Amino acid sequence: MISLAELQRRIDAGDLSPEAAVAQSLEATRTKDKTIGAFVCHADRLHVASAGPLRGIAVGIKDIMDTAEFPTEMGSPIYRGFRSRGDAAVVMLLKQSGASIVGKTTTTAFASVDPTPTLNPHNHGHTPGGSSSGSAAAVAAGMIPLALGTQTGGSVIRPASFCGVAAIKPSYRLLPTVGVKCYSWTLDTVGLFAAGVDDVARGLAAMTGRPELLLPPEIPTPRIGVVTQDFAGSSEASGGEALRIATKVAERAGASVRELNVPEIIAEAWRLHPMIQEFEAHQALAWEYRENYDAMAPLLRAKLDETRDMTPAAYDAAIAIAHRARQALETAFDEVDVLLTLSAPGAAPQGLASTGDARYNRLWTLMGVPCVNVPAYVAEGNLPVGVQVIARYGADAKVLAAARFVEQAIARQ
Amino acid sequence: MISLAELQRRIDAGDLSPEAAVAQSLEATRTKDKTIGAFVCHADRLHVASAGPLRGIAVGIKDIMDTAEFPTEMGSPIYRGFRSRGDAAVVMLLKQSGASIVGKTTTTAFASVDPTPTLNPHNHGHTPGGSSSGSAAAVAAGMIPLALGTQTGGSVIRPASFCGVAAIKPSYRLLPTVGVKCYSWTLDTVGLFAAGVDDVARGLAAMTGRPELLLPPEIPTPRIGVVTQDFAGSSEASGGEALRIATKVAERAGASVRELNVPEIIAEAWRLHPMIQEFEAHQALAWEYRENYDAMAPLLRAKLDETRDMTPAAYDAAIAIAHRARQALETAFDEVDVLLTLSAPGAAPQGLASTGDARYNRLWTLMGVPCVNVPAYVAEGNLPVGVQVIARYGADAKVLAAARFVEQAIARQ
Repeated sequence: MISLAELQRRIDAGDLSPEAAVAQSLEATRTKDKTIGAFVCHADRLHVASAGPLRGIAVGIKDIMDTAEFPTEMGSPIYRGFRSRGDAAVVMLLKQSGASIVGKTTTTAFASVDPTPTLNPHNHGHTPGGSSSGSAAAVAAGMIPLALGTQTGGSVIRPASFCGVAAIKPSYRLLPTVGVKCYSWTLDTVGLFAAGVDDVARGLAAMTGRPELLLPPEIPTPRIGVVTQDFAGSSEASGGEALRIATKVAERAGASVRELNVPEIIAEAWRLHPMIQEFEAHQALAWEYRENYDAMAPLLRAKLDETRDMTPAAYDAAIAIAHRARQALETAFDEVDVLLTLSAPGAAPQGLASTGDARYNRLWTLMGVPCVNVPAYVAEGNLPVGVQVIARYGADAKVLAAARFVEQAIARQ
Repeated sequence: MISLAELQRRIDAGDLSPEAAVAQSLEATRTKDKTIGAFVCHADRLHVASAGPLRGIAVGIKDIMDTAEFPTEMGSPIYRGFRSRGDAAVVMLLKQSGASIVGKTTTTAFASVDPTPTLNPHNHGHTPGGSSSGSAAAVAAGMIPLALGTQTGGSVIRPASFCGVAAIKPSYRLLPTVGVKCYSWTLDTVGLFAAGVDDVARGLAAMTGRPELLLPPEIPTPRIGVVTQDFAGSSEASGGEALRIATKVAERAGASVRELNVPEIIAEAWRLHPMIQEFEAHQALAWEYRENYDAMAPLLRAKLDETRDMTPAAYDAAIAIAHRARQALETAFDEVDVLLTLSAPGAAPQGLASTGDARYNRLWTLMGVPCVNVPAYVAEGNLPVGVQVIARYGADAKVLAAARFVEQAIARQ
């Protein structure tokens, strides 16, 4: 993989020009993407900025985000050839930081569950996960040092886990969703993929103009609460093994580790996530679903068909439960700095028929709390499995520092 | 003006066909819009639905909302000829209810403060207000029975006051903003204009599928807290007179009325509204401002120029104050059903150089609470002045009922 931090150091030192850094990414993409299929389109001619913290950094943009210079096709024939007039807010944040947008990455249709043809770079017989399939795979394959995705259920953390890369789903609305195709306004969150936690932190700090998100020279020892999310069903062996390893090495590295049971209201919110998601999707995708029914991706269409009869009253009740669950979770963070839990049930499923299961992600999306995936284990078939580090709402600097702590503990094991 | 309620009754009774109802609106628009300039474009051929609660209802859509069948030009040459691929979620909610979209209405550029050429139907020498200028004027002039606008500062309630129509800015996110050009994601709220409170209630109930928003046969007598918003400066004589009249007739009609002083934290939130608005606008309109600077409307551009240096820390602090203010306001509603306050400092200013001042609106937008404008007084020059009825977050049915109470009390005076 290409380390963003390493590129920044070489560019700052004058050992590498921004043009040469971007050219390396373009060359790697040219070589590797024929097999992986992470991009839907590439830049014809490229502007490489000479200033800004992300100068020389080649970035891939999930194809549900508006870009004036590329079509935005949402992974769906309904948007074939569509050109937005301007750039999504997050694309502009990248450009203002000096980054070079090298192309658009594959997305499941409207960031839902119908798989893309993208392959998992670690094992071509397996899915890279979804919905941000191309962004996760492009970073994992060493094509680019940074990519943007979105998460509504588990579409950032899960593909990061399957592809063995670091990723952050920041606190709700730390990154704006303006110009990003909406599925659910309560849930949709823009996230970043990069080689390691430090790389992710640097990307997020540059985009948001928040230097406090950069990792401190000394990473403090975190108090960790391990959450098994039994309410979401049991994990596969490889998922459980990843969590066991991360827990053990973090404790050995000095973290105080305890098991944490979340209150019942939080499990209740987990159960209601799909209702909030689909109720809002019926409004957000009303034009696509009602006026382009035959062209809708089949799994998404079936999901919308099944949920046509949800009532505003049921939605309101679910939103009220989510609100109470957020308050309960806030209290749980009085005792620990971060939570440690599964990023996915296990390694990437075989084949490309499914992008995997978001059952260990969706609660945290609904809670709006920052989550970081850290690769923790490699299962049979060379398949990576990650763990998820989670902090309270707004504690994005803390979640990054704690994730870096876990990442270093795993590297030293 | 055209009453939506009256059209519904005649259509339901079989006295008027949906086609004839829409044709009346088209004819009125053809006659009147040459002078008023409320529309930027009209439907070429029109689909009139035979079913749905809004069949036969001609609706105008503010031109920052995506429509597959019309260009969406945002009141700016930057978007000249732009066609979205689909319809905004609120446009689909109207279509699903059977409404006929007859055209796009004028908007200040990006729903900010640069005036449109639209005239106030009550006095052509005065502004209709903004930013939803065309929607307010089209309803006031009797062209159409229903129109959509948006409010980020005071862009629904203020033009409704200036134009003498009813309008609701519902609770934050009761209506989705998907497909509506963003200025500030914390503030942007879709609202409705119609002839009277009952008309507004019927439109909102149909769009949201929430029959509980329809007015009950018996309107309960509300407990009213009168708020003068002194923290926002003093009103003009006509604004003060409108509030005095509404207070007096409501009390005479049986409402319990008391003056209410809001806690200091709420005034503090009022002061911080512009910081939240412009900090987010710098991200939401980054492409327009940074890549189309010369084509930006001058007042908006100057506002963005002045606020370039706002820091994330100052924004975070403002968001935290707003959160505390919402909690304080929630408590204030334990003692009263609704607040009654000014919709605008006074009648519509003379000329078209300014769309008026949002200082009595912006707090309530930031609080996310539902607000209804009720016309209360006609000032010199035949200029209407409204008052604003406000309920706690989520109490949209209550705010409509209380506004209807005030409207009836004024009618009986």
